[in-house]
Amino acid sequence: VSVALVGAGPGDPGLITARGLELLRRCDVLVYDRLVSPELVAEAPEDALIVPRERLEQDELNNLLVEVGRDGLDVVRLKGGDPFVYGRGGEEAVALAEAGVPYEVVPGVSALAAVPASASIPLTHRGVADEVRVLTGHSAGVQSSATVVVFMGREHLPDVCARLLEEGIDGSTPAAVVSRGTLPDQEVVVADLGTLAEAARSVPGPALVIVGEVVRLREALLTTARLALVQA
Amino acid sequence: VSVALVGAGPGDPGLITARGLELLRRCDVLVYDRLVSPELVAEAPEDALIVPRERLEQDELNNLLVEVGRDGLDVVRLKGGDPFVYGRGGEEAVALAEAGVPYEVVPGVSALAAVPASASIPLTHRGVADEVRVLTGHSAGVQSSATVVVFMGREHLPDVCARLLEEGIDGSTPAAVVSRGTLPDQEVVVADLGTLAEAARSVPGPALVIVGEVVRLREALLTTARLALVQA
Repeated sequence: VSVALVGAGPGDPGLITARGLELLRRCDVLVYDRLVSPELVAEAPEDALIVPRERLEQDELNNLLVEVGRDGLDVVRLKGGDPFVYGRGGEEAVALAEAGVPYEVVPGVSALAAVPASASIPLTHRGVADEVRVLTGHSAGVQSSATVVVFMGREHLPDVCARLLEEGIDGSTPAAVVSRGTLPDQEVVVADLGTLAEAARSVPGPALVIVGEVVRLREALLTTARLALVQA
Repeated sequence: VSVALVGAGPGDPGLITARGLELLRRCDVLVYDRLVSPELVAEAPEDALIVPRERLEQDELNNLLVEVGRDGLDVVRLKGGDPFVYGRGGEEAVALAEAGVPYEVVPGVSALAAVPASASIPLTHRGVADEVRVLTGHSAGVQSSATVVVFMGREHLPDVCARLLEEGIDGSTPAAVVSRGTLPDQEVVVADLGTLAEAARSVPGPALVIVGEVVRLREALLTTARLALVQA
């Protein structure tokens, strides 16, 4: 893998993942976000090229990642929190995939649950809350599309799909079931919400269901993500 | 700190945090969930007491954590994903806090974003989705309370609060703003939704807003979580 989109976690440098830290410690190029902790930037090898992201526009950044990735250098793109939760990691992944550059996404601890935890607030608690809505303040007032994520045992899939259809989500909305996610024997079934329960009938649990237009990005992102896995 | 509630991440053993791995490697007692990877369980010291959680009821587990915590042993309670996202970590934290046992929460990478990422699906993507709803399949069909989390710059707070009130969330709902979360200079302001914007006027950004009944848990959880910080 040449380019790794790595989540740095919510702030505390101890909350980077073991895998992310390992890649960081042996990278040739590090491109880091403004909110990434200086302790983590200092973990890069002394002779690594270190680039603060704030000097670059998103287009310039995408081009830089493609360029150094093509050269076969080990690149770490270190992003605050998780790359795929308001991290615009998807945009960088699309640019890399379109350019045919192998890449890997290393998820990070998102502020989403970690910051409430550090204020002694659990996001979910039995008998208190079992649903979470995540928004960004930048879009306040703007009606936008939402991704729905469901944690579930496999046997709940028909009920979950029925509930979402009842709530008014269109049956043609793209949807996916992921079983054994992040493990070598991970299974993914993609369908639309109306046919998902039938299509994923034989997938083992526990599983995560994802419903929303973001599922369409998978095809574009998969090209070189898969390459990366094969080369790993 | 004697008891650490540690998130093991979504499955791939490389996705535990650096801090979690450090605590795991020097614990006296490890209590682990069924879905935690065997590679992580193997990271505990050879002479550690290792307890699979599945043999215990939740009450028995809480009592065990309190007991070994009181003895001053270093205990790692290793949970799949993140302790506070459908992890029932809050229940264990409440038991520890009520018993006066110092504890620490080490957030983990939740399946929430990591599993979609490993299927090449970003949760949010500019122009595609900027909101996420998180549910559990176990409650399908049951109307329940939701926690709202908002990622935002400080300057958006009045707009965010106004939007949530307009959407019908009651002004008396407990709410919190957390600035610089997980860092030593973290600031937390707790108020109700109706007065939050005014109460948090001087808090620096970026910040995370949490709205919902879970905010009430903070008082109970804070007692020995704070102790833990002081002793650290």
